[in-house]
Amino acid sequence: MADDHDKDKQLAEKPQTPLLDTVNSPADLRALPREDLRQLADELRAEMIDAVSVTGGHLGAGLGVVELTVAIHAVFDTPHDRLIWDVGHQAYPHKILTGRRDRIRTLRQKDGLSGFTRRAESEYDPFGAGHSSTSISAGLGMAVAAEQQGLKRNVIAVIGDGAMSAGMAYEAMNNAGAMDARLIVILNDNDMSIAPPTGAMSAYLARLVSGPVYRGMRETAKTIAKKLPSVFHEPARRTEEFARSFFTGGTLFEELGFYYVGPIDGHNLDHLLPVLTNVRDAGEGPILIHVVTKKGKGYGPAEDSADKYHGVSKFNVITGAQAKAPSNAPSYTSVFAKALIEEAKNDDRIVAVTAAMPTGTGLDKFAEIFPARTFDVGIAEQHAVTFSAGMAADGLKPFCAIYSTFLQRAYDQVVHDVAIQSLPVRFALDRAGYVGADGPTHAGNYDAAYLGALPGMVLMAAADEAELVHMVATAAAHDTGPIAFRYPRGDGIGIELPERGTPLAIGKGRIVREGSTIAILSYGTRLAEALAAAERLAALGFNPTVADARFMKPLDEELIARLAQSHEVLLSVEESAIGGFGSHVATFLARNGLLDGKLKFRPLMIPDVFTEHASQADMYAAAGLDRAGILAAALDTLGYDEAAMHAAADRIG
Amino acid sequence: MADDHDKDKQLAEKPQTPLLDTVNSPADLRALPREDLRQLADELRAEMIDAVSVTGGHLGAGLGVVELTVAIHAVFDTPHDRLIWDVGHQAYPHKILTGRRDRIRTLRQKDGLSGFTRRAESEYDPFGAGHSSTSISAGLGMAVAAEQQGLKRNVIAVIGDGAMSAGMAYEAMNNAGAMDARLIVILNDNDMSIAPPTGAMSAYLARLVSGPVYRGMRETAKTIAKKLPSVFHEPARRTEEFARSFFTGGTLFEELGFYYVGPIDGHNLDHLLPVLTNVRDAGEGPILIHVVTKKGKGYGPAEDSADKYHGVSKFNVITGAQAKAPSNAPSYTSVFAKALIEEAKNDDRIVAVTAAMPTGTGLDKFAEIFPARTFDVGIAEQHAVTFSAGMAADGLKPFCAIYSTFLQRAYDQVVHDVAIQSLPVRFALDRAGYVGADGPTHAGNYDAAYLGALPGMVLMAAADEAELVHMVATAAAHDTGPIAFRYPRGDGIGIELPERGTPLAIGKGRIVREGSTIAILSYGTRLAEALAAAERLAALGFNPTVADARFMKPLDEELIARLAQSHEVLLSVEESAIGGFGSHVATFLARNGLLDGKLKFRPLMIPDVFTEHASQADMYAAAGLDRAGILAAALDTLGYDEAAMHAAADRIG
Repeated sequence: MADDHDKDKQLAEKPQTPLLDTVNSPADLRALPREDLRQLADELRAEMIDAVSVTGGHLGAGLGVVELTVAIHAVFDTPHDRLIWDVGHQAYPHKILTGRRDRIRTLRQKDGLSGFTRRAESEYDPFGAGHSSTSISAGLGMAVAAEQQGLKRNVIAVIGDGAMSAGMAYEAMNNAGAMDARLIVILNDNDMSIAPPTGAMSAYLARLVSGPVYRGMRETAKTIAKKLPSVFHEPARRTEEFARSFFTGGTLFEELGFYYVGPIDGHNLDHLLPVLTNVRDAGEGPILIHVVTKKGKGYGPAEDSADKYHGVSKFNVITGAQAKAPSNAPSYTSVFAKALIEEAKNDDRIVAVTAAMPTGTGLDKFAEIFPARTFDVGIAEQHAVTFSAGMAADGLKPFCAIYSTFLQRAYDQVVHDVAIQSLPVRFALDRAGYVGADGPTHAGNYDAAYLGALPGMVLMAAADEAELVHMVATAAAHDTGPIAFRYPRGDGIGIELPERGTPLAIGKGRIVREGSTIAILSYGTRLAEALAAAERLAALGFNPTVADARFMKPLDEELIARLAQSHEVLLSVEESAIGGFGSHVATFLARNGLLDGKLKFRPLMIPDVFTEHASQADMYAAAGLDRAGILAAALDTLGYDEAAMHAAADRIG
Repeated sequence: MADDHDKDKQLAEKPQTPLLDTVNSPADLRALPREDLRQLADELRAEMIDAVSVTGGHLGAGLGVVELTVAIHAVFDTPHDRLIWDVGHQAYPHKILTGRRDRIRTLRQKDGLSGFTRRAESEYDPFGAGHSSTSISAGLGMAVAAEQQGLKRNVIAVIGDGAMSAGMAYEAMNNAGAMDARLIVILNDNDMSIAPPTGAMSAYLARLVSGPVYRGMRETAKTIAKKLPSVFHEPARRTEEFARSFFTGGTLFEELGFYYVGPIDGHNLDHLLPVLTNVRDAGEGPILIHVVTKKGKGYGPAEDSADKYHGVSKFNVITGAQAKAPSNAPSYTSVFAKALIEEAKNDDRIVAVTAAMPTGTGLDKFAEIFPARTFDVGIAEQHAVTFSAGMAADGLKPFCAIYSTFLQRAYDQVVHDVAIQSLPVRFALDRAGYVGADGPTHAGNYDAAYLGALPGMVLMAAADEAELVHMVATAAAHDTGPIAFRYPRGDGIGIELPERGTPLAIGKGRIVREGSTIAILSYGTRLAEALAAAERLAALGFNPTVADARFMKPLDEELIARLAQSHEVLLSVEESAIGGFGSHVATFLARNGLLDGKLKFRPLMIPDVFTEHASQADMYAAAGLDRAGILAAALDTLGYDEAAMHAAADRIG
């Protein structure tokens, strides 16, 4: 600990980076003497800690791959050789080394660098990411493309052990293992994706690493490396012999057709460099290099508490203390968890399922109280949903908590295993709508459209955190088919919470403000902005109605028909893309002739573009989904010039 | 061959089924002496061949599991023990044995038995299917549900080797392997799902089966079984010893935490019964039994040509000759394949990707000419899409041919890897809309909604087979982002085909019939019905406009605005569910104030229910999407009483 403290103190001083200052691209790095790379890695690590302490972001993952990043760029001819970082949240050191150091303190800020790899950002990012387990598929595609075009090119996919639990990674391995494509998969085994590892594959990797051969190898490898300084210049024929010296088993990967090398200490450049060089010079066929790293490596607080330092806010480098944004209200996530716990206390058929996101979904709290009723299935959304369907088929009440963006990965399972069979799986869709700094890959904008198309789904969106509590109770009580409720990233509005929720009437909305002429029909947490807009409208002399739809499916047709028939203007407001709530309302109105008369209906929704990372508030403003945007749309549809209205009001007021 | 012929002749006689006649449920089967089960299996096989010769359907898969079906029901206490058939198309013998024999000749007919397992159909179908690789997840859910509720229950999932290439199966294995749940997975290894096997897992299984131990075991197992007649009454402690005698390796499954037993001859009841009994009486933890079967077993034509007898039309039992429905036009599938071949001849960057459906997608024809440019990745839609994205990122032009219903399984990959990155992957969506006998699990009704929500996607639907040719050319030419084109199951309308397609202007529709008062805007192959309805409308004194939208995204806003402004009534017609074309048109019209006036807009679409299997024509009629339905909607919206109109027309005519 004293040691860690000293290290922290050292890092806290403005990082000295004389070598890093000379590296503007991987070509500069490759020109350095190999013996300087250790120092470069140290400087890179210090620079990354300093940058993330300012911006917040993913800390532990990047720290774990500092040496690997240096080694890959030292050995391979990037960007001609394709380097794909799975997920991409570990690519900060890679960004620093690939011409983006000058912008590294803009990470995840509006107009700044993305927190993931991104094709549009750099030629060194040949494939963007954000979701996990895509890199082997993309890499195999690139390897085939090179082959088809007669290009000699290495393709390297770096994937974490957690990402290996996803079926997609297996599908890609299964396909690659049967081909001759020149694909190098680096399995970055840090025994910790976001949450502690789950599943048989993790256990298997742990056995490989703890095996006697590896334990012995840690020492002997140093000797090997020293004995073979000329390995970089050795012909390819030595590859097999050398790589085999690292071989400790790996039968599972070999059975899948990969040549297995490892495990290797991922923080030891003397191990990494020769192995990567040999692999680079090897022949045909897919290769898997098993590299063992420590998440958060080199920064005490992150090493000690890998989960807390997976994603961080700004932090103090010396103490490791993270800045906490002031908040007057609990997060939607914590409200969901608390509400589910209350329901589960009263109904022992309630079980909870997460796909490797216990903390993100709040189910870690549920698991503290109901460990035997909590199931973390790994990064495996497809399985999570059908596993839930199986439980629902036999009488349990599964709450399947998956972010809106990740449920995309289990869409077929929602259709085929849940909806067609009318199985009462409860979907808790956290991070619905814009997600801010995580940007377009994590935007939860599409669930309304993709779930809305499915017969029999019940879809709800919480207008505030108290509504969320009621929706959890509604989902618990709804036992005749699937039901989903969505809620956004971030904190509630500070409304008083009921001790326990009361089930809502399915398909019934509520009038929040009774008025005339113009009605605003909100679905989800835009309600607060709709009410704020309504207040201003009232100040301008209108008397708007505001309603909370609560349900997108089934639609409250009675309520909507009434609003349509008794107002001149109807606005719908939601936090989802086209095909969602507003499109369903438009379809309902059209089908029933409610648009044939003089009603002016305007659906406000997330615009049809992928929105780059920024604050959620910025995003809503740009989309016209905040108070100002709703107000402007209302006045415009009512036929008033907004500026003139405000001016007139100011004159009067 | 003479042997086969004799067998065929025998089968062609009306099957004698004295034993089967006494079995109305698995309980009856379990009451039979074990030595009668061989005869029962033979009768069951004959009955199944006879039934499918009348109904058509999936033949080979069911024939391959006749003995397995008998053995499972003999050993396990179904339906208390849960038996889940993966995909479910092999469950015809299971249906015959579980109280549905009297309806077996209604298979896949309107109001008849489903061609898959179905919860609503029988308590012996605890989990319905249709898509592959869901059974292990569902089974694990059921095993957990039993455990949570303190029930002692066996859960058996029967899954094919092809289905094992899907990531979902791996996700479930990975999860199950780390749990103590009492789950029995029977791997039905017939080395042939629909197409010949692909991927490393297949090769691995082949190695297991061809291993020296298995070859020797085939003979010795008979002896073992004879020596151990009392094995059924032996205590569970013998399990390990006995099961181990079948063990030939299986390290891959064992590394994933399963106890591996096999390979076992799946047509030999003397092998199956003792192994299943021992497994039944075993302790905790997941078990995988590797059973080797022959697809089409016991019916010569099906054994000899497993792919042609995977799914059959009605056939002559003696000759094996399948009835061919008369057709005046090529299938959409074949038109797609031919058009893609033409494009590929002119552009060597074009490559084709299928997820284990080379015949279904028509890519088998493409592969004949361009074997090195065709990629069958196995049942692995997720990988197929991101693999295509990788190829597109590096300059190839991948056509990813996946049925509409199966693309659901790769939705996240379409969003995250293709659309967000604007990569020009071409999606050929066969079987879009209603699919007839395959029923709701295979309905391609949702792609318009789930793809329509994504920014930057270009979406097309072919109005006829000539349009499809042009859309293939359009997709080949469109190199700036993703593009998808959908077309239905079945044959075209017989229109003349161009030798090669001409790229269409992106986002531009066409007027097919110029008129006034009422406009019908069709998206997809409903155009022919729309034109037929228009003809009748013309006969009734109207002058309808008919337009083919061609594109759902981007919408031809100019065309739609013009139609809206120059007609009193606008109908949209499509073969997809809510959230699709009509909902997008409604949203566009509303946003732009085009519904504020007197326009009556009515979107006609697939209704919001899961539609059971029937003929496609029946389905379209029930949905109001045929000539009669479109006509009725038109007259109703125009404000005319349909019956009176027709009567008046008849009086005049």
